[in-house]
Amino acid sequence: MRKDAMKLVRYGPAGQEKPGMIDADGQLRDLSGQVADISGEVLSDAGIARLAALDPASLPAVDGSPRFGPCVGQTSKILCIGLNYSDHAAETGAEPPTEPIVFAKALNALCGPNDDVEMPRNSQALDWEVELAVVIGTKAKYVSEADAMNHVAGFAVMNDVSERDFQTKRQGQWTKGKSHDTFGPLGPWLVTRDAVADPHNLSMWLDVNGERRQTGNTSTLIFNVPHVVSYLSQFMTLMPGDVISTGTPPGVAMGMKPPQYLKVGDVMTLGIEGLGEQKQTVIAA
Amino acid sequence: MRKDAMKLVRYGPAGQEKPGMIDADGQLRDLSGQVADISGEVLSDAGIARLAALDPASLPAVDGSPRFGPCVGQTSKILCIGLNYSDHAAETGAEPPTEPIVFAKALNALCGPNDDVEMPRNSQALDWEVELAVVIGTKAKYVSEADAMNHVAGFAVMNDVSERDFQTKRQGQWTKGKSHDTFGPLGPWLVTRDAVADPHNLSMWLDVNGERRQTGNTSTLIFNVPHVVSYLSQFMTLMPGDVISTGTPPGVAMGMKPPQYLKVGDVMTLGIEGLGEQKQTVIAA
Repeated sequence: MRKDAMKLVRYGPAGQEKPGMIDADGQLRDLSGQVADISGEVLSDAGIARLAALDPASLPAVDGSPRFGPCVGQTSKILCIGLNYSDHAAETGAEPPTEPIVFAKALNALCGPNDDVEMPRNSQALDWEVELAVVIGTKAKYVSEADAMNHVAGFAVMNDVSERDFQTKRQGQWTKGKSHDTFGPLGPWLVTRDAVADPHNLSMWLDVNGERRQTGNTSTLIFNVPHVVSYLSQFMTLMPGDVISTGTPPGVAMGMKPPQYLKVGDVMTLGIEGLGEQKQTVIAA
Repeated sequence: MRKDAMKLVRYGPAGQEKPGMIDADGQLRDLSGQVADISGEVLSDAGIARLAALDPASLPAVDGSPRFGPCVGQTSKILCIGLNYSDHAAETGAEPPTEPIVFAKALNALCGPNDDVEMPRNSQALDWEVELAVVIGTKAKYVSEADAMNHVAGFAVMNDVSERDFQTKRQGQWTKGKSHDTFGPLGPWLVTRDAVADPHNLSMWLDVNGERRQTGNTSTLIFNVPHVVSYLSQFMTLMPGDVISTGTPPGVAMGMKPPQYLKVGDVMTLGIEGLGEQKQTVIAA
C-alpha cells in the first residue's frame, strides 16, 4: 500500500454522520476537526493526500461501536451497470450487453452498510446484488479510459438491492425497482484508490441467513472500471461523491430455480476482498 | 389567487444563486435576508406561508436582469414520466402506458431556464419536450392520491431535453439520453401550489427558431399530478426539492416525418400558461 491508502468512513446517527478514518489497528478515529465530511474536494487527490499526511494517532479515538453511514457524502447520483458480469448475464437468461446498460438508483436509497433493508409494501421479489462501487473523486466529463482512474477517489461495497417485479414488470424502466429507501447500503468504508492494487481481481461474496448465494470476482467484469467511468462521462458529467455500482456476479435470487426471494427477517451478509463487509436484516416497510 | 400565491426564483451566476421572488409588478426582489435558498423546509406549507406573509415592498429590489438558475435548490432527484400525454404517445407509435413509465434524469442536467443547451458530442438526435414540472414540498412516502397535493410545493416549466439515439438505441434504459449537462432547464420560477387554480388545464407550447412545434394542454395528461405523486411514493421516498417532470404533449422532433432534430444555433422558446417562459440556444458540448 502507498502512504495515502486509507479507509474513510462516516459514522453516527443517520443524517448526522461525522467523518472518520480507520487506523492500521482498526481503531475508528474522528476526522471532524479536519474536514466537514467525506465529500467534495476532500475526495480529490489533493484532499486525500492531506488526510493521508495526518498522523492517525493524533486524531481522537472514537469509543464504542457507532453506526456507519454511507461512506461518502454529497452524492449527486448513483449509476448502476446492468448485467456486467458474463456469468450473471447468463443466469438471467440475457445476452451479454454490447455496451454498458446504465440505470439510476434514487439517492433516497443510500444507507449505511449495516442498516436494516426495507421490503416495500406489495413486494414479492426482493433480491440482493453484491457489487463493487466506484466513488468519483473529481469532476469527469468526456474523459478517456487512460485518464478515467485519475477521477476515481476509491472503492466500496454496495448491495444493489432490487425488487425484480417493480424493476422488470412495471413498464420496463428499471429505476422503479432499484430506488426504495435502504436499497443502497454503501460501505463500511471508502478505500482510497491507491490502496487497491487491482480493482479487477477482487473476490466477492454474499450470504443469506448464512448460506452462500453469490461467489464472484471482479475479474469477470465485462466492462472494467476505466471503461465504465469513461463511458458514463460521454453521457453525463460525473461529480465528486457520485457512486457507480458496477454490476453483480452470479447467484441472485432471480437466477435460482425456483427463485428464492428475500423474506422479512432474512439476514444478508456480503463483502469484497479488501473492502470490508456489510450485514443487513430485512424488515417490513 | 390566495395570499400565499408566489413566484419564487433563484438568481445569479450558476452555482451561486440567491433566493428571490417576483412581486406583483414583475420586480425581482431579494429573499436572501429571509432564507438561504428555495429549498428544504422553505418549500413546506409553513415555509411558503412565512414568505407569503412578507410585504414584497420591504424586500430589496434587484436591479438589472440577472440570470435565473433552476428555480429550486437541493434537489435530490429528477423523475420523469414517459409517454404521459395520449396524443404524444400516439405520435411516437407507442401504446399508451397502463401505468406510469418512470425514468431518472441525472442532477447534473439541471440548469437555468435561459441557459444554453449543449448538444453532446456525437449527437444526431437532439430533441425538446415542454413539460409541467411538479416540485415536492414535503417528504412523501406511501401517500394516497387524496393526500398527494399536500406534498407539492408548486409548479414550474421544464424542458426535458433528450438525445433520442442515446435514449432508445443504447441498451434500452433511458437515463443515458436524458442526463447530459443542461438537459434540464427548470423555471423561470416556482409558482406555489395555491397560485395554480387547476394544474390539469394549462396550455403549453414550444417553438424552434420561432416556428411552433408543440401545442398542448395538461388536460390530456394520462396520469394526473396526484396520481403520479402518489404512484411514485409507492416506489421511493420523495423529498423537498425533488422534481417530477410529468411528460410532454405532441410535437417533438422524433415524431416529425422526417424527424427534424436540433442543430447548433437553434433557439427553443417554450412556456406554460401562468408558469412563465424559457429560451435556450443550442451550443456544441
